[in-house]
Amino acid sequence: MYKEKTAQAVDILNEFDIDLWLTFVRETHTIHDPGLDFLCPASLTWQSAIIISRSGEKTAIVGNLDSAAVEETGIFDKVISYKSGIAEDLTGYIESKNPDTIAINYSKDNEMADGLTHGMYLILKNYFKDTPYADKFVSSEHVLSALRGRKTDKELKRLKIAAKITNDIYAEVTDYMEAGMTEKDVAEFILNKVSKLGLETSWDKATCPSVFTGPDTAGAHFGPTDRKIERGHILNIDFGVKKDDYVSDMQRTWYFLKKDEKEPPGSVKKGFEVLLGSIQAAAAAIKPGKEGREIDGVARDYIVEHGYDEYPHALGHQVGRAAHDGAALLCPEWERYGERPYMKIEEGQVYTIEPRLTVKGHGVVTIEEEVVVTKDGCEYLSEPQTELYVIKK
Amino acid sequence: MYKEKTAQAVDILNEFDIDLWLTFVRETHTIHDPGLDFLCPASLTWQSAIIISRSGEKTAIVGNLDSAAVEETGIFDKVISYKSGIAEDLTGYIESKNPDTIAINYSKDNEMADGLTHGMYLILKNYFKDTPYADKFVSSEHVLSALRGRKTDKELKRLKIAAKITNDIYAEVTDYMEAGMTEKDVAEFILNKVSKLGLETSWDKATCPSVFTGPDTAGAHFGPTDRKIERGHILNIDFGVKKDDYVSDMQRTWYFLKKDEKEPPGSVKKGFEVLLGSIQAAAAAIKPGKEGREIDGVARDYIVEHGYDEYPHALGHQVGRAAHDGAALLCPEWERYGERPYMKIEEGQVYTIEPRLTVKGHGVVTIEEEVVVTKDGCEYLSEPQTELYVIKK
Repeated sequence: MYKEKTAQAVDILNEFDIDLWLTFVRETHTIHDPGLDFLCPASLTWQSAIIISRSGEKTAIVGNLDSAAVEETGIFDKVISYKSGIAEDLTGYIESKNPDTIAINYSKDNEMADGLTHGMYLILKNYFKDTPYADKFVSSEHVLSALRGRKTDKELKRLKIAAKITNDIYAEVTDYMEAGMTEKDVAEFILNKVSKLGLETSWDKATCPSVFTGPDTAGAHFGPTDRKIERGHILNIDFGVKKDDYVSDMQRTWYFLKKDEKEPPGSVKKGFEVLLGSIQAAAAAIKPGKEGREIDGVARDYIVEHGYDEYPHALGHQVGRAAHDGAALLCPEWERYGERPYMKIEEGQVYTIEPRLTVKGHGVVTIEEEVVVTKDGCEYLSEPQTELYVIKK
Repeated sequence: MYKEKTAQAVDILNEFDIDLWLTFVRETHTIHDPGLDFLCPASLTWQSAIIISRSGEKTAIVGNLDSAAVEETGIFDKVISYKSGIAEDLTGYIESKNPDTIAINYSKDNEMADGLTHGMYLILKNYFKDTPYADKFVSSEHVLSALRGRKTDKELKRLKIAAKITNDIYAEVTDYMEAGMTEKDVAEFILNKVSKLGLETSWDKATCPSVFTGPDTAGAHFGPTDRKIERGHILNIDFGVKKDDYVSDMQRTWYFLKKDEKEPPGSVKKGFEVLLGSIQAAAAAIKPGKEGREIDGVARDYIVEHGYDEYPHALGHQVGRAAHDGAALLCPEWERYGERPYMKIEEGQVYTIEPRLTVKGHGVVTIEEEVVVTKDGCEYLSEPQTELYVIKK
């Protein structure tokens, strides 16, 4: 996987006309640059430079005690080991290549491409202060965003497996749940399944799964509580698993029938249908070349036009090694999203579509699907939810 | 623990004459600022500001979907929730406090205080570009280093428990090991113990434990291999456990007797005695007010004076929530250590002491002890190794 992705990186450097891509890190076990997930599996303790050139040369400059493990990866053409300090080897290497542009690992807009800490940036600038290269640093955000976003077949396969496992667990949850159980009961059931499969959750266990039952819950990003499932509740779950380093991120919605109900009340059915419609409309609009804000707008308008409040977040984000995999987002033009609403959708990217709406007195309807962008549209990564799951127990 | 440490932070702000301490982060599940371990247990998705003032006010400004979980922590006097963007709330809050100095979360010398990414730094500077506060940012490294370093009684208790568990596992390893086993066999035995105790290792499992047997091994920071333990080998292990968020980091050394040996050969015994002597000399030299380079020099000189090569790394680092816990180091004046050799040792800090030396033809002798700095010296956190562990099997 590392060899495949570093080879892909060389193509991207040529596409974007970048001579060298320098990823500058230290103590990666503590502060982990997400870009390293494609560049080097070994932990790097001291100041370390991972350098890829447009000619295809892959070089690592690392502290002496790290060099054996880095060589062992087989990724690098050259591993330079230093004892006292990296400055001489690093500046010497760059001078020998004499690049016009050096992309370095920071980004304002994409946190997944922003692994360079400010302290490390100051150190790097200082090393190059008396050289012509100090003015040649640019952000590597476009390089890394393209590399993260454009999934290889191997990556897609892993993402599909993670999504399938998630759907399978949701099917078991449907059989398991009954009124009277707490949100925590449901979360525990899911975590046990994950643990038995020998997997990890896609993000912190404290909120993965998130389980929300009934009206007036805490909103997203809050852990399961002791609140009991009551008949008449809408319940939703947000959850995903990590399998072979790739994750899923999917939401599903259930309704618990009251004793005298044969089917969910009209308001719940309508809420579900509108939400489903907004997802299908968004999915139909996705294709390479569109901007994320256009897709967000399709779902947001659909929901508002049907009489519901707009969702207070983005429609969807990319998924890959991380549940929030960075760069282009399906999001509105809000300050907090910076340049991301305007980024173009590309073939091979994987996005979530996850609108939400509230049905008064019952709870929140939310579905989160994952889609992969194809040449002229998109495909679901796994079976989508097309009917409200109704529970009688 | 969070309340205890944030209260300690207020005292430190007053000690260092800092008006506000601002920790600026986003997507903390992906890029985790180590300083958050003392400030906020909740995951923060969008741009978020954790602000502590010298008057004792603790404020969080976070995205709307994160605010319930942040309020739930009970740490903050005020949680400000935003939807579109943080800029207005953040600049408004700072203006209302009108501070002379704002410490922010970056550091050149201490990676454990360098959680602000360069992209986030640029964003922050931009928010304040038309205000008088843009010139009032300073590094929070001294604040956070003091907070990390000065362990409370509760923290010390946890560190001692982690060290004790590590020593207990080492005792079981001594009973278990025999010639013919591989480094991987030994590592697996240790990882099973850790797993049975429901604990995690202190750092990546791939190199925790590290196991090195015999001469010409890969050096530190390399995972266990299929190399077999032979009689006449010196074997060393580097390992630690995380218990209740606090870790240990300790090394031990064994010798495997040859069939005809009653005791280790003279060269091995001498190597062990010299190494032990260097640790005891360093421990005797530690006290508040000394600089780390002085202590490193004591051990380094001791080893060189006894005819061995100096170790190619620092003598010791701090331990706490992380195995490499940042700031002051017991290290030589090498470029890669920046200002750290000159930092002063303080009461309540916990350091490792971990020299190494090679005994030709047998392997590497290395012991790593943990000590806590007291008012006028230091104490071992757990039982130190004072005799070479000799195995006949």
